[in-house]
Amino acid sequence: MIVHTRFANLFDISQWKLTPYQILALGFAGLIVAGALLLMTPVASTTGQGLSFIDALFTATSAVCVTGLVVVDTGTYFSIFGQMVIIVLIQAGALGIMTMATLMALIMRRKIQLRERLIMQEALNHMTVSGVVRLTQYIIFATFLLEFIGGTILAIHWYSDLGSTGIYYGYWHAVSAFCNAGFDLFGSSLTSYVDDVTVNLTVTSLIILGGLGFTVIFDVWNNRRWKKLSLHTKLVLITTFVLLIFGTVVILLLEMNNPNILGELSWKGKILASYFQSVAPRTAGYNTVDIGKMQDATLFFTIILMFIGASPASTGGGVKTTTLGVMIAAIWALITGKHDAEIFRRRINQNIIYKAFTVFFIAATLVIIVTMMMSISEEFSFLRILFEVVSAFGTVGLSTGITSSLTVHGKLWLIITMFAGRIGPVTFVLALALRSRKGAIHYPEGKINIG
Amino acid sequence: MIVHTRFANLFDISQWKLTPYQILALGFAGLIVAGALLLMTPVASTTGQGLSFIDALFTATSAVCVTGLVVVDTGTYFSIFGQMVIIVLIQAGALGIMTMATLMALIMRRKIQLRERLIMQEALNHMTVSGVVRLTQYIIFATFLLEFIGGTILAIHWYSDLGSTGIYYGYWHAVSAFCNAGFDLFGSSLTSYVDDVTVNLTVTSLIILGGLGFTVIFDVWNNRRWKKLSLHTKLVLITTFVLLIFGTVVILLLEMNNPNILGELSWKGKILASYFQSVAPRTAGYNTVDIGKMQDATLFFTIILMFIGASPASTGGGVKTTTLGVMIAAIWALITGKHDAEIFRRRINQNIIYKAFTVFFIAATLVIIVTMMMSISEEFSFLRILFEVVSAFGTVGLSTGITSSLTVHGKLWLIITMFAGRIGPVTFVLALALRSRKGAIHYPEGKINIG
Ligand SMILES: [K+]
Ligand SMILES: [K+]
Repeated sequence: MIVHTRFANLFDISQWKLTPYQILALGFAGLIVAGALLLMTPVASTTGQGLSFIDALFTATSAVCVTGLVVVDTGTYFSIFGQMVIIVLIQAGALGIMTMATLMALIMRRKIQLRERLIMQEALNHMTVSGVVRLTQYIIFATFLLEFIGGTILAIHWYSDLGSTGIYYGYWHAVSAFCNAGFDLFGSSLTSYVDDVTVNLTVTSLIILGGLGFTVIFDVWNNRRWKKLSLHTKLVLITTFVLLIFGTVVILLLEMNNPNILGELSWKGKILASYFQSVAPRTAGYNTVDIGKMQDATLFFTIILMFIGASPASTGGGVKTTTLGVMIAAIWALITGKHDAEIFRRRINQNIIYKAFTVFFIAATLVIIVTMMMSISEEFSFLRILFEVVSAFGTVGLSTGITSSLTVHGKLWLIITMFAGRIGPVTFVLALALRSRKGAIHYPEGKINIG
Repeated sequence: MIVHTRFANLFDISQWKLTPYQILALGFAGLIVAGALLLMTPVASTTGQGLSFIDALFTATSAVCVTGLVVVDTGTYFSIFGQMVIIVLIQAGALGIMTMATLMALIMRRKIQLRERLIMQEALNHMTVSGVVRLTQYIIFATFLLEFIGGTILAIHWYSDLGSTGIYYGYWHAVSAFCNAGFDLFGSSLTSYVDDVTVNLTVTSLIILGGLGFTVIFDVWNNRRWKKLSLHTKLVLITTFVLLIFGTVVILLLEMNNPNILGELSWKGKILASYFQSVAPRTAGYNTVDIGKMQDATLFFTIILMFIGASPASTGGGVKTTTLGVMIAAIWALITGKHDAEIFRRRINQNIIYKAFTVFFIAATLVIIVTMMMSISEEFSFLRILFEVVSAFGTVGLSTGITSSLTVHGKLWLIITMFAGRIGPVTFVLALALRSRKGAIHYPEGKINIG
């Protein structure tokens, strides 16, 4: 009888007492599996042949996790239906499972329980429970507004070249850009538009706005003046700005004379292309030059930018700009002999610093393990494998062109990496975690030498 | 007049008020420059031609920092005098500038000042000022004793093959092995002895003992029983043991069928060679197989082992086994929802955890920057460059064979990396630091989202 009851409980989900982290992870996983099944249907492809399960799972994970790594060409392999499934998965993934759940709840006028609010809080990485619902409504509105504006500009621009297809392409790519998804219908990303000012500026603006995070956009919109902005917003804006300028200059210097990248372009084209490739690792995944032909130094530099990624509570991935900012502040305090780490005249709590280093360490460990496993299973050069793994972890989607030639093992590793990268390394680890149990035993303190 | 006084002070070292970190760094730097000048003399080479300054500086840095990367072959390029200079630099570097200073002080019966004791404390990474002098005496005694025992075994073993040269080789390589220096006189490291049980076991034992750190050897010698050992000693022994076994198994599995590495060897040879190559990154730099012919996965795995390195206050480099242990304990506490990180029923202070993550982050940043710069200046594949940089940082000395073909830029970057790796990433950063000034202003606490 006891055994019977235990088994009954196993199938009663409400008895599982999942942590918010686990609910978040399961929500994403459910969406991915549903998407994969839809992409396997014959009607999703132009040929009428269904995609294999592994490739459908890879594509759905890449879409939901807004990565943009692809094993088949989105523009030619998938039918309009298939392309719509992908853009919906992208939009759903970007807004986040919990935001979607709130939307559903609002539609159904269902009262939102405190427990659900706590889950949303985790999903949005927002700091107070109050205002989460209002923020969620704002997120959906702002997302659609920005995608509409960007899409309209691109639709008008592409209408002259491509006719009515141009309108479809305009809105489709605006959604993909704002969501930092990196999926494209051209088959060669945006390489045809390497020196097209309208496409470059519209797409990069959507990417940057999507990567700043909703809390930052919200703060800037409400306060307008620098002094009134929160510390978080200031840090995000400064780190993003510095990374974009620094990235543009470094890429320009490294690839200026490479005939396959910037060498043949005019100065306008050189600067636009450097800027675009500096924005792309934040974490859009679009490219206007052939990434596979970059020099090793540029590829490694791009890997570092992709690893840093975008800002928290955004459509982007990576360890996040704030994590980098906090770690630099902590090291700076150590160097200058200050007692506390400080940013913009605010003291940074030890716990925040601890969390920043933890995120960095878990992310590095994940990338190292997957790169190790893939350098066993795949034939490509180490740098290209590392590039692919960090691209997946940062949900970036840039590739040196090896994705479709990977083994099933390689694809599975990237699926796990995209998933961990999207829900965040700490959430990923916590979702795997045992139930929280506060240490009942307090041991005496021990001494250890470090470094 | 004021200007004159200021200049006078500049040349009066006692007025500089250097921090202990800076004194430590300058001591190492002085020894390196002195060594480089000696190695440039015609009498140091067999041909009578002096070495170029950059190559002499590289060799002296490699010796003092007990790294073992070489730009000229030690056995054929250098005369007996040159080889003696190198082994003395190795011995001096390993014992540490401060231990040497203590030795001098003891010889001269000079009273040791408290200030000097504090500097020694930093050098030895030991936790109390009392007992530092006694420990230093012990270090010197234990070093010479272990080198004598190991050297005698090797001398007897090699006497039958090489005659009186074998005796010289025996003691020379015993010093190099215990100091984790990786320099050899054979020209091909120990590849001729890949399945020689005596050489393998003697050399690996010297390497492991040297890499445990003097405090651990001291603790084990005094207490003998596991329960009585300090937390630090237990952590060092466990992490070293796990890394050695894990490394042996992984290398065996990865290279078992590679005809250039283990494929042609007997089972005894396969296991001995796997074990040796697992010990070498801890951080000896000797090898019994051709590292350059390993598969990419094995090279990357070796990079990870080299980055971890040996234990604190030892002859080895890297971020250290205890740093790894503390980070794992901290992540484990996070996963299991415990309030405190715990190791062997002892609570780990937040400051120790903070320091461990800082060491890891600074080390990773250093490796990334140098790899980036060298992938611009050097023509070799990314993985080989990364291997060389981590080998220099961990003062390991393993190489895929590119060291002597590096540009002057590349050599200078490796010199800086070896130096930073030897004095430790945190000491390196602190030596560059401005004078310690406790934060006079206490800013209010700010909030930032991480990851
Ligand atoms: K992306
Ligand atoms: K070494």
